[in-house]
Amino acid sequence: MVDMKEIKDSLPDEDDANDPDFAHVDKAEMLKALGQLGNNAGLIGALQHKLDDLVGMSSGFVESLHWKVRARVNALSEAQGEHDELYGKFLEEKRALEERYAKLYAPLYAKRAAIVKGEKDVDAKPEDGDDADEEAPKGVPDFWLCALRNHELLGEQITEKDEGALKHLLDITSRSLTKEDFPKDEDDEEEDDEEEEEPIGFALEFHFEPNDYFEDAVLSKKYFMADMDDPILEHSEGTDIAWKQGKNLTVKVLRKKPKKGAAKNAKPITKTEKTESFFNFFSPPEVPDEEAELDPEEVEQLQEAMEMDYEIGAIIKDKIIPNAVEWFTGEANEDEDDEDYSDEDDEDDEDDFDGDDSDEDDSDDEDAAPKKGKGKKGGADGEEKPPECKQQ
Amino acid sequence: MVDMKEIKDSLPDEDDANDPDFAHVDKAEMLKALGQLGNNAGLIGALQHKLDDLVGMSSGFVESLHWKVRARVNALSEAQGEHDELYGKFLEEKRALEERYAKLYAPLYAKRAAIVKGEKDVDAKPEDGDDADEEAPKGVPDFWLCALRNHELLGEQITEKDEGALKHLLDITSRSLTKEDFPKDEDDEEEDDEEEEEPIGFALEFHFEPNDYFEDAVLSKKYFMADMDDPILEHSEGTDIAWKQGKNLTVKVLRKKPKKGAAKNAKPITKTEKTESFFNFFSPPEVPDEEAELDPEEVEQLQEAMEMDYEIGAIIKDKIIPNAVEWFTGEANEDEDDEDYSDEDDEDDEDDFDGDDSDEDDSDDEDAAPKKGKGKKGGADGEEKPPECKQQ
Repeated sequence: MVDMKEIKDSLPDEDDANDPDFAHVDKAEMLKALGQLGNNAGLIGALQHKLDDLVGMSSGFVESLHWKVRARVNALSEAQGEHDELYGKFLEEKRALEERYAKLYAPLYAKRAAIVKGEKDVDAKPEDGDDADEEAPKGVPDFWLCALRNHELLGEQITEKDEGALKHLLDITSRSLTKEDFPKDEDDEEEDDEEEEEPIGFALEFHFEPNDYFEDAVLSKKYFMADMDDPILEHSEGTDIAWKQGKNLTVKVLRKKPKKGAAKNAKPITKTEKTESFFNFFSPPEVPDEEAELDPEEVEQLQEAMEMDYEIGAIIKDKIIPNAVEWFTGEANEDEDDEDYSDEDDEDDEDDFDGDDSDEDDSDDEDAAPKKGKGKKGGADGEEKPPECKQQ
Repeated sequence: MVDMKEIKDSLPDEDDANDPDFAHVDKAEMLKALGQLGNNAGLIGALQHKLDDLVGMSSGFVESLHWKVRARVNALSEAQGEHDELYGKFLEEKRALEERYAKLYAPLYAKRAAIVKGEKDVDAKPEDGDDADEEAPKGVPDFWLCALRNHELLGEQITEKDEGALKHLLDITSRSLTKEDFPKDEDDEEEDDEEEEEPIGFALEFHFEPNDYFEDAVLSKKYFMADMDDPILEHSEGTDIAWKQGKNLTVKVLRKKPKKGAAKNAKPITKTEKTESFFNFFSPPEVPDEEAELDPEEVEQLQEAMEMDYEIGAIIKDKIIPNAVEWFTGEANEDEDDEDYSDEDDEDDEDDFDGDDSDEDDSDDEDAAPKKGKGKKGGADGEEKPPECKQQ
């Protein structure tokens, strides 16, 4: 009979990782002991998981080397420590450099925003063929809608219905995350904030003029990164959009006609369902906590969704914002010819409703499919002029 | 009858892109004229290609805007020019920062190389359980082989046969490309070199001790990048390895027994065929010149091969070289758990030889398949001790 307590005690706590004696714990011995617990699979799993967490420390590889080689490897690890300290300083300097230039770009971006919004105008005179008396629109209409739509991957996210709302997009800005961006934990004491490190990552802010779609003046998306140099997304968060009544672009309304024999003034039964929309960008995939059990397929789907979510954010931050006018005119597109973006798999767009297809009226959805081509004309709002971006 | 010369003359040269009048060239008119060349598909193709190159200029999108909006867009383009100038300075400063830190890392890397090679030793004393009299090997045996093999994607590239050669790998270094790295063009005059810009990209250099496999002391791989900020690979070049007789790891030798009735001392017929090997890294995919006609599948295969080629180089430069000791001990591996590398498709490994399978003796190939697992033991050379990296 194996003494359970003895085995548990022989497994080091994670704190032991810093204890030099820990390296002498013999993994093989522990695994042998675990094997004797044959009929308690749950406990074995838990203990093996703990063991796996420690495998770098407990593998005994370094300990198995000749003592002189071991001393050499320790010397290499010390040099590695010096390297890592330098590398930390490099990352700090790089971040400072980026912040310094962000400040230099800021007035140019502010000037751009003022011209796009029509807050600032420039000298202009009509050329041959221009109608000098024609009334001019305010600012640069559809500037950001066209800039986004001219990027292949972003254009695929924008449905014709989305265009009605994106016509009101006046500016997109980005900034580094600060402590203020940490999700508020109600139990936190104020004093704790002082000790927290700055989060790594960036926020995108979409500035809208008042519109018929939602109440928010700014929709934001925050990318919390796991690492300073590697683009590994930890999680992202978006504004919970305050949609106006019946204007939510991320759901479609399915109507079912009342059955024959129902009162003539019976209201149609309606049901909403998630649908494709650029505005799903603000409801990014949620990372389940570590205890959630996902099958490998779910893990892969989540990973792909997070990669796509990050890729879209990175394109907006690194390509669209710095070069918006070239995206608006379409010039930037030509530089992209060499690059390859993987398409999202087309999803089946089933409109099942209570298994009763024939009675369905899903006309609200007819133009909700994302356009796979670029620059396709059209708009959901009859009274608004469809944006005429550069045609390709 | 359409006057060919007239049409050609109406097509602008690329120099015309800077000519403000060019914007008035009417693409629709040109396409109409091209249509009249119905029975000269080759010429149409050539002209349309030229037209496509100019489509950003000739689309007429900006010209179609209200003249006041056009003036605003021109003002935005000017501000964009100021931004791009700043961005160019940012890239210069970033490159200078990286070079400055590369110089700070250099002595640490030199110290590491000296310890690994056994040129420099460190103080060491045996601990409990060590045999004080046991003879120590030189330096840190299999340091780089184990470091490479502990990375999942790199480990997949290394066959058991490769290990025999990679045991002799003493150091891997990286550096930025310089003008010296441009492929030599024999027709170039010396004076031209002064005017050339520095190439963008990096070189990896693999330093070997004298070994039975090849004559080279250094195998190098150069990555020429298309862009300073985006990781777009233009092409890469590797050392043409001077393999010793019968030691080429990138080919396998197929032997066919002489047919019955042949003289008893008849030599076996042999044939070589490309095979998987880490050393294929030095024979990267060649980018065909622009005139080569590839079907879409070939383009995709080439693109995937180039992406994999770049990814491997980037991992060695950015992960293995800066943290080699952590890769050697296996510690670095645990940080990688969150990341996902796409596997190369397994290729069929057919050993067809003159359609005569039964007489084949392809035993030379039996251990050439790349290991898909990490840290698998074994070696091709019977007399060499198989490397014992960290087991996972």
